[in-house]
Amino acid sequence: MIKVAINGYGTIGKRVADAVDAQDDMEVIGVTKTGPSFGCQLAVKKQYPIFCTSDDEERINAFSEQGYVCHGGISKLLEIADIVIDCSPGKMGKINLERYKKSGIKHIFQGGEKHDLTGLSYTSCANHESALNANGARVVSCNTTGLSRTLVPLYDACGDITVECTMIRRAADPGDSSKGPINAIKPVLKVPSHHGPDVMTVKPEIKINSLAVAVPTTLMHVHSIVVELPVNHNLSTESVIKLWKEQPRVIVMNGTENRIPTTAEVMELSRDIGRKWGDLHEIFVWEEAISLIDNKLYYFQAIHQESDVIPENIDCIRALMGTNSDWKDSVSITDAAISKYNGI
Amino acid sequence: MIKVAINGYGTIGKRVADAVDAQDDMEVIGVTKTGPSFGCQLAVKKQYPIFCTSDDEERINAFSEQGYVCHGGISKLLEIADIVIDCSPGKMGKINLERYKKSGIKHIFQGGEKHDLTGLSYTSCANHESALNANGARVVSCNTTGLSRTLVPLYDACGDITVECTMIRRAADPGDSSKGPINAIKPVLKVPSHHGPDVMTVKPEIKINSLAVAVPTTLMHVHSIVVELPVNHNLSTESVIKLWKEQPRVIVMNGTENRIPTTAEVMELSRDIGRKWGDLHEIFVWEEAISLIDNKLYYFQAIHQESDVIPENIDCIRALMGTNSDWKDSVSITDAAISKYNGI
Amino acid sequence: MIKVAINGYGTIGKRVADAVDAQDDMEVIGVTKTGPSFGCQLAVKKQYPIFCTSDDEERINAFSEQGYVCHGGISKLLEIADIVIDCSPGKMGKINLERYKKSGIKHIFQGGEKHDLTGLSYTSCANHESALNANGARVVSCNTTGLSRTLVPLYDACGDITVECTMIRRAADPGDSSKGPINAIKPVLKVPSHHGPDVMTVKPEIKINSLAVAVPTTLMHVHSIVVELPVNHNLSTESVIKLWKEQPRVIVMNGTENRIPTTAEVMELSRDIGRKWGDLHEIFVWEEAISLIDNKLYYFQAIHQESDVIPENIDCIRALMGTNSDWKDSVSITDAAISKYNGI
Amino acid sequence: MIKVAINGYGTIGKRVADAVDAQDDMEVIGVTKTGPSFGCQLAVKKQYPIFCTSDDEERINAFSEQGYVCHGGISKLLEIADIVIDCSPGKMGKINLERYKKSGIKHIFQGGEKHDLTGLSYTSCANHESALNANGARVVSCNTTGLSRTLVPLYDACGDITVECTMIRRAADPGDSSKGPINAIKPVLKVPSHHGPDVMTVKPEIKINSLAVAVPTTLMHVHSIVVELPVNHNLSTESVIKLWKEQPRVIVMNGTENRIPTTAEVMELSRDIGRKWGDLHEIFVWEEAISLIDNKLYYFQAIHQESDVIPENIDCIRALMGTNSDWKDSVSITDAAISKYNGI
Repeated sequence: MIKVAINGYGTIGKRVADAVDAQDDMEVIGVTKTGPSFGCQLAVKKQYPIFCTSDDEERINAFSEQGYVCHGGISKLLEIADIVIDCSPGKMGKINLERYKKSGIKHIFQGGEKHDLTGLSYTSCANHESALNANGARVVSCNTTGLSRTLVPLYDACGDITVECTMIRRAADPGDSSKGPINAIKPVLKVPSHHGPDVMTVKPEIKINSLAVAVPTTLMHVHSIVVELPVNHNLSTESVIKLWKEQPRVIVMNGTENRIPTTAEVMELSRDIGRKWGDLHEIFVWEEAISLIDNKLYYFQAIHQESDVIPENIDCIRALMGTNSDWKDSVSITDAAISKYNGI
Repeated sequence: MIKVAINGYGTIGKRVADAVDAQDDMEVIGVTKTGPSFGCQLAVKKQYPIFCTSDDEERINAFSEQGYVCHGGISKLLEIADIVIDCSPGKMGKINLERYKKSGIKHIFQGGEKHDLTGLSYTSCANHESALNANGARVVSCNTTGLSRTLVPLYDACGDITVECTMIRRAADPGDSSKGPINAIKPVLKVPSHHGPDVMTVKPEIKINSLAVAVPTTLMHVHSIVVELPVNHNLSTESVIKLWKEQPRVIVMNGTENRIPTTAEVMELSRDIGRKWGDLHEIFVWEEAISLIDNKLYYFQAIHQESDVIPENIDCIRALMGTNSDWKDSVSITDAAISKYNGI
Repeated sequence: MIKVAINGYGTIGKRVADAVDAQDDMEVIGVTKTGPSFGCQLAVKKQYPIFCTSDDEERINAFSEQGYVCHGGISKLLEIADIVIDCSPGKMGKINLERYKKSGIKHIFQGGEKHDLTGLSYTSCANHESALNANGARVVSCNTTGLSRTLVPLYDACGDITVECTMIRRAADPGDSSKGPINAIKPVLKVPSHHGPDVMTVKPEIKINSLAVAVPTTLMHVHSIVVELPVNHNLSTESVIKLWKEQPRVIVMNGTENRIPTTAEVMELSRDIGRKWGDLHEIFVWEEAISLIDNKLYYFQAIHQESDVIPENIDCIRALMGTNSDWKDSVSITDAAISKYNGI
Repeated sequence: MIKVAINGYGTIGKRVADAVDAQDDMEVIGVTKTGPSFGCQLAVKKQYPIFCTSDDEERINAFSEQGYVCHGGISKLLEIADIVIDCSPGKMGKINLERYKKSGIKHIFQGGEKHDLTGLSYTSCANHESALNANGARVVSCNTTGLSRTLVPLYDACGDITVECTMIRRAADPGDSSKGPINAIKPVLKVPSHHGPDVMTVKPEIKINSLAVAVPTTLMHVHSIVVELPVNHNLSTESVIKLWKEQPRVIVMNGTENRIPTTAEVMELSRDIGRKWGDLHEIFVWEEAISLIDNKLYYFQAIHQESDVIPENIDCIRALMGTNSDWKDSVSITDAAISKYNGI
């Protein structure tokens, strides 16, 4: 039973905790909060032991004043855990890494941190094996994870590929009302954007650049992708569709027949089939828009920012703990367990 | 054990089914689908028996061709149920009512239907007792339900009130991408709008008019409300807050302190505390904006369109079946049971 | 010929300058810029003499380095002008007022400043006569101006009125892409909002309160208004329509027949009829939504934030200079002159 | 003096009429309206003779009943004109073409019609000379026009180029409130989209494909473009910038320094510099996002849908009339004349 600590029980931390909790080979040994805020109630209900993100006595005691049991500071949690998933807000990476190294605990960071922090970036389908028994890793961002899921199988099928991607990004998170633009398109003026090239941290063989624009929506990102295949590839539009339908965590669906013309309907599908928080761990590819012309492959995919990396964290735990050397094994165990708390 | 049929297993039907399923005194005896579509999978997973909305043999047989067990047509379902919750899309009310009457089954319609259909409109806090043992009722719309929750306790506290409300409505459902406006405000040019006066179908003593505008958001409606109290009222801003905090299914929360300035953060709160589908059954009132000046009370409340009526349907079942004569009893049973499948 | 200085040649200043320039009894004697930025080109094209907002030699000389003729600092401009229109960005009121007083020049501020700054607030239809020959005044905000245009004639027609207004506000200016919310409704949590009561600075006899919400649109504000008339009023829906159709700077139009269901179409109407910058100086009232029920009058009006106050500034110049004692005289002169540079 | 008829005096027709009117070598001989609607007033003010789109006596007479002088039906207008600019709503192309051919009049259609209608597509910088003295032509769409302006000079500079473009399209026109999506991204599921390849109707040498998504904004389209240059090109990022700065009707501007991060600020720039209707005839390229890496050139450009083709229509008139054989001559005459009614 792998003992997992969740450092930071917020938007990502809550999701990772529930995904860990659903697995048979691991358990949530504790979650951290900065103080006795509203979010503690969910931890209590889930029976996850609460720890304080700090070791400061005063801050630890503040929890009991609000009626919560705090089991101690972060150091105590790191002592009893086998591995820690860092779900802190940005900019805490360096400080936390020091702490984890001192405690000698295995650690996983999220895509908000840079590759250099751990020197090892991870996504299940790209490089699970190279992460086996490593001490630390970074699960890559939602966008990099999404790109990897469709590009890695293409690379595996026909080798050398060159990718150009325009990321049409949601401009604000669903619960963020302070950011615009309300009625405009905002190009990311740093060209190429950092999004595409980040794929090369998990699959250096893929050549990729990207441009990005932010648009007034809060739901999902959309990638508009052109892949240049080797001239002697032997793929067809149909075989690409087949490839992706067999790929874990990719949904290939006809948008016209299923009345899913936009990201709004993709998200609603997710709620309708009973997914917790309305999340979509899979990336969504519109089937009828996949088009291979000569050696150029065109397609659109939609990415659910706050959730597609959740199952990747679970696989990464197994990689670092060295318990499952085959990525597909881990993926199927992870996803079967998660499906227990989802509708379908 | 009350045997409940759900006629129409779509956006509302799915939610009502799960709420029924969570109660100890009732069970889902069957749900209907028009055909073997994607949504059947959720029913299978939940182990709700599937029936066909039609009695046509061919349509019934179509289910097994897709691998689903169909237990028969709607007539068969109505035979074995004690009560049916009509969650059909709009405009089916009259036809369905005929069918229910022929089957001699108790029936509950949703707020999309008019009051005249059953002659009895229902919301838990307004008129539970007058619905006891009735044959049929209409659970009022999301807006009417929301207005009743804050206005009925005001009426109970000080009698004669006159209400003016501007409804700022989401222009499209979260999963509807075909409707605008993208960057405009659309007044409802029929004045007064039908929304406010519908409260009088459950509480005729409340005088109320309303204006409505649609705005480019998909999350929640907001009501901007002015209540004229009797001159000799003995309420204060503080006592109104206390009144509403004690009222079931009303959340009164300080938006500034809790960083909930808009409906986006209200919805995110709902997801963060683990509510299924991200729903919010309660209406949300911003505490610091409640303001009683002389005999005029001003406040804002936010309404989650697809979910605030779900628990009302459960209470209405008990009213029609005559099992719980006190509305607060039913409400507390309903809400405790629902909380089992929600985070907090 | 009234010599008018425009202090601040930005969004408002440019519009006021062109409106002044179109009049026969006044001229633009100079406009100020903080430095030789892009906006100077428009002043050059219009042949408005450019001055510097500061008296600093270095800053004045900076203009010629960029090829612009700068005629001196603000003090020099104030010396040669009869009156200054302050179109500075917010928070400059106090400092500028000191300067104007020292120069002994008449001055007009905009609605971003508070009433207390000059102690005299102005809008053409409400209190032109009380501003005759005054030294300084504040032209009230776009919202207050819009409310005055429909409320003052109502007050004149039947005396004592009590007004409740919900302002549905555009959340960002058309050229501001940094603000949200993208997909939410944001209530203004200070209740009542400051908007409505500001009407009482120009017409103290009108009792008014307001609530406000911000919504994701950049075009116009909409007011949802309920006016309680005296019980013995002798108005009808038709007579109110007639009243407003005769009122200057109010457009009463049937939205359904003219296909103007939302603020988007109102703004497009403005562009289509050739209005400069697509501005709409008039406020727009949807005719079919005007509804008088017993003694309550309901209606919606739309306000073009950056332009409805432009002609008011012209009238205010005449009031302070004492040249036109009748407001309707000034309004008709102003509007006829402005129409020369507009399509219709 | 070229006598120009404008068939259809709506959104495009009004703009073309004013642009024609501003030229010294052509005049508006008449504009057509379907009936005596509101838009006639603008024609009267501009002193453009009004004709009826139909030859039906009854419809012609209807104008005088509303107080407008109608000079006859379309046939009469075609008799007295040298050339007609077809600005009718879509789907009228075939019928109108027949009429123009019968009248033996030269004719120009807009980009809503297909290339096949006239067999000759036109944009000033791509193929002015090939349209000299032709009988009919189609001025290409806003997107094709915009792409041509940056791609043609690239082709001229280094030959063989291959272009991939993602069009991020405004989902609705500024005056259209009926269309969504409000909070979603909608990929155009036909891949490749028709937009890019349309460039080949004016410049067959350019290889181009495109993908398109619609997003909730009403202002401008944005193109995200990757151009593969010949390996032996001798361009640099700087020389590309220089190339485009010298190209007519292209604005290359640093978005960061000039505070123009999004399309909202681009449009506001247009209003602020006094452009009629807030139009922007030029396409806007963000300078700092132009990036040439090896032989791939990346850039973003913004397109003002309803106006970038207006000056192209003027040049096309001269091409068909055979009066100016050099495109740059025509362009400079056109733009100088138009600038008379614009601020800068």
